[in-house]
Amino acid sequence: MFISNMSNVTIPSPPIDRLDTEGIETIHEASMTILENLGIQVSHERALELLGEHGAIIEDELVKVDRDLIEDAIEQAPSSFTLHGRDQEKDVTVGGDGHILRAPGYGPPNIVTVTDGRRSSTMEDYENLVKLAHQESAINCTGYNVCEPNDVDQEVKHIEMVSRSLRLSDQPLMASTYGEDRASACLDLVGIAVDDPELSQPYVAGLINTVPPRSLDTRMVGGLLTYAESGQPTIISSFTMAGASGPATLAGSLAQANAENLLGITIAQLSNPGAPVVYGVPSSNIDMRYGSLSIGSPESMLFVSFAGQMGRYYDIPSRGGGGLSDSKTVDYQAGVESGFVQAVTAFADIDFVLHAAGILESYSAISPEKFLLDCEAIDFLDRFATGYSLDEDDLAMDVIAEVEPAGHYLSQPHTLEHAENAFLLPELADKRSHSDWADDGSLTAFEVASEAVGKRLAAYEQPAMDQDIETALEAATEEAIHRIRA
Amino acid sequence: MFISNMSNVTIPSPPIDRLDTEGIETIHEASMTILENLGIQVSHERALELLGEHGAIIEDELVKVDRDLIEDAIEQAPSSFTLHGRDQEKDVTVGGDGHILRAPGYGPPNIVTVTDGRRSSTMEDYENLVKLAHQESAINCTGYNVCEPNDVDQEVKHIEMVSRSLRLSDQPLMASTYGEDRASACLDLVGIAVDDPELSQPYVAGLINTVPPRSLDTRMVGGLLTYAESGQPTIISSFTMAGASGPATLAGSLAQANAENLLGITIAQLSNPGAPVVYGVPSSNIDMRYGSLSIGSPESMLFVSFAGQMGRYYDIPSRGGGGLSDSKTVDYQAGVESGFVQAVTAFADIDFVLHAAGILESYSAISPEKFLLDCEAIDFLDRFATGYSLDEDDLAMDVIAEVEPAGHYLSQPHTLEHAENAFLLPELADKRSHSDWADDGSLTAFEVASEAVGKRLAAYEQPAMDQDIETALEAATEEAIHRIRA
Repeated sequence: MFISNMSNVTIPSPPIDRLDTEGIETIHEASMTILENLGIQVSHERALELLGEHGAIIEDELVKVDRDLIEDAIEQAPSSFTLHGRDQEKDVTVGGDGHILRAPGYGPPNIVTVTDGRRSSTMEDYENLVKLAHQESAINCTGYNVCEPNDVDQEVKHIEMVSRSLRLSDQPLMASTYGEDRASACLDLVGIAVDDPELSQPYVAGLINTVPPRSLDTRMVGGLLTYAESGQPTIISSFTMAGASGPATLAGSLAQANAENLLGITIAQLSNPGAPVVYGVPSSNIDMRYGSLSIGSPESMLFVSFAGQMGRYYDIPSRGGGGLSDSKTVDYQAGVESGFVQAVTAFADIDFVLHAAGILESYSAISPEKFLLDCEAIDFLDRFATGYSLDEDDLAMDVIAEVEPAGHYLSQPHTLEHAENAFLLPELADKRSHSDWADDGSLTAFEVASEAVGKRLAAYEQPAMDQDIETALEAATEEAIHRIRA
Repeated sequence: MFISNMSNVTIPSPPIDRLDTEGIETIHEASMTILENLGIQVSHERALELLGEHGAIIEDELVKVDRDLIEDAIEQAPSSFTLHGRDQEKDVTVGGDGHILRAPGYGPPNIVTVTDGRRSSTMEDYENLVKLAHQESAINCTGYNVCEPNDVDQEVKHIEMVSRSLRLSDQPLMASTYGEDRASACLDLVGIAVDDPELSQPYVAGLINTVPPRSLDTRMVGGLLTYAESGQPTIISSFTMAGASGPATLAGSLAQANAENLLGITIAQLSNPGAPVVYGVPSSNIDMRYGSLSIGSPESMLFVSFAGQMGRYYDIPSRGGGGLSDSKTVDYQAGVESGFVQAVTAFADIDFVLHAAGILESYSAISPEKFLLDCEAIDFLDRFATGYSLDEDDLAMDVIAEVEPAGHYLSQPHTLEHAENAFLLPELADKRSHSDWADDGSLTAFEVASEAVGKRLAAYEQPAMDQDIETALEAATEEAIHRIRA
């Protein structure tokens, strides 16, 4: 009888790369031309000083940077870093093999549920989404601005959100990058919650969006400098909409997005060499018929593949993709679009996935139901990633010898032993017969997930926090709010 | 200014392989052990004779085959072949780079539509599905038994279906393999329709399912021999359900499925060396809680990757995957499960995709709406496959120079020139704003597709057929039916 001497020979799938080396270099060279000859608009004073000190040419806030400066910055940026949770067991490594950070949707001003339909999102929705993110194994960073809390004073909402995130979860998180003041206020709260006021290691990531074409927002650059100087990672992301804020071709938009990202990375490295950064291309196209953003598109998938490939080319962790859809409700379109972008995200070797779950309507809405469904979909991809185990027991040659031709394995001890762990047993995807499904109310996945959301929120347990820290965090939160309102 | 000298440097993505060479060889060796030592049940007389003549040991219908015979057969099987349409422009190459044959669902006895819900499928449904398959660019083979026509005499339904498929479409097709008589009767009709009674080249593919574990059905083997001897391709497929008709482990089920496939391929090559065959692994797992088949599962995705990889290892075209879901309706679950399996099918370098569109409920139902939605999803994957074009016009460096920082490209001539062709413009996926979608009735993708099905069927035009051929086909159809009933 054949004997296997292997345990698990599954190899990591090669990434879905769509460019050869010449193609990568073509884009890189085009970006260098943009940086060296066309320039990028920067109006943040300290950033302009830093750039000027290092030889950049600055004309009317248009910064032209030599490729040497860019290449030095790429060299200085770390290839991986660890984002630490309030609970050390929740630490997540970003970059390197086999690690993926996944954070919820970011920024949607609307919420879509079975019971309410679509409405403006509130702080209660924010809290609920953080509770879901804390519980789902697919999500390992609670993110920030998971939905816009529209019922809260806009001037203090960043404080309100971060303070709640810190109490409701012990995972790593994200926080405001909108100007030095908001960024600093958030970082102070994080320092208190993790009992490390100096932020001696990365705990909180900041999303830095460029303003395509060829511009960096002053407040965002302020946030970038604050995070970088504190050693906290920034996700530098050119959210280019090809056909609107970028050329109506992928190549042109790739080159432009890449140039913007590289300038952001350079500013981070000039302010604090070695500061952790993530190379982000959350770009997509617009639908040329309506002028509307299209994130659940094949072009969106191509941008994700590009992000993974360029991140590896520059040896900087990459960001892209997620559970993205343009659908207005949790239907087939939501499933297939999110599934495609999610699959490419997994297969393109992306390191940091923002919007990993819940997004509908081209980022304009988030659905708690879709959040859970997207998380289960991530479980499918993670199971696919583990591949096959080929040891003796898995090959089961003696069991195969035992079963009659055209017989069945149902009553084999081997089958019973493997019943629980052999295959993924999804909670939301319905695997029953049609009649059992019909007897149970013929629910769609959206409806099934609605029940699951209720159960998750009822079962949620707030993670422990030291009483002194909790008191200090509450006081600091109140003080920060008071300071803003004063 | 940087000048590109490239046109299109997108490379084909490497296939999503999950086994290294040692892993492949481990499975191959395990299969050889099954074939050499355990044996596979065959009761078809002529097949037993062929096998016996070539040195197989036959004990009580249990056939044990030496690896040399198997390896000779693998060697003889062609690495690609062309399946010809009644219209030469519809020819499809199976195997080799960049070609994918995609056929509709196969065998579902139920139909699911927005208007009727779920009901038993009829010949009218069959005709409608063939008409949709004929029109959709994603589908290039109209298949067979696209749904079970339950309102037709079961003894003659193969004649009724094939005759209709030949008239309603001029694409390549599939036909019955259930015994020599049905197979021959179908091949005769095809010969008349393509005006090549001797079937001098491949026109019609036959699906040959093994009976796992370790058994080949007598009628199926009859069909296999009939197709192989006529030079018509067979898709030899071990539809193993891991946990029921295979061990409750992937490795054991892979080894068993591979062994069954290799014996089927060997029988085809013994009967007609060089006969075109396809290596098929449409296997999946059962859900161990319900004993139900689960085709929209991560394990199903792993079987697809395995099929692609083993096909390349044996240098035989592979079959696997499709738009597979266990959902009972056209919802998020249907979208994400089909999307995942469809994506892996595209990324695993599968050559022949049966069930490419429409499947619900673990093969028990097909939905015309989902058929169109799955076809549009395939368009997404095909667009992703084309990658980026990096020529001068695509890089658009002079357009980038033209647009002010933080400006927009909407009014650029370059944008207007590219408006129609820059990005995929889907018909069914809704890319409009929420308000436009809501004003239009807040339709789900299932409902949108329902309208599209109606439009497609209204717009359908039957392809031309020579009058003499049509008359001959009608006469032959009537005669074949008469012969069966006599």
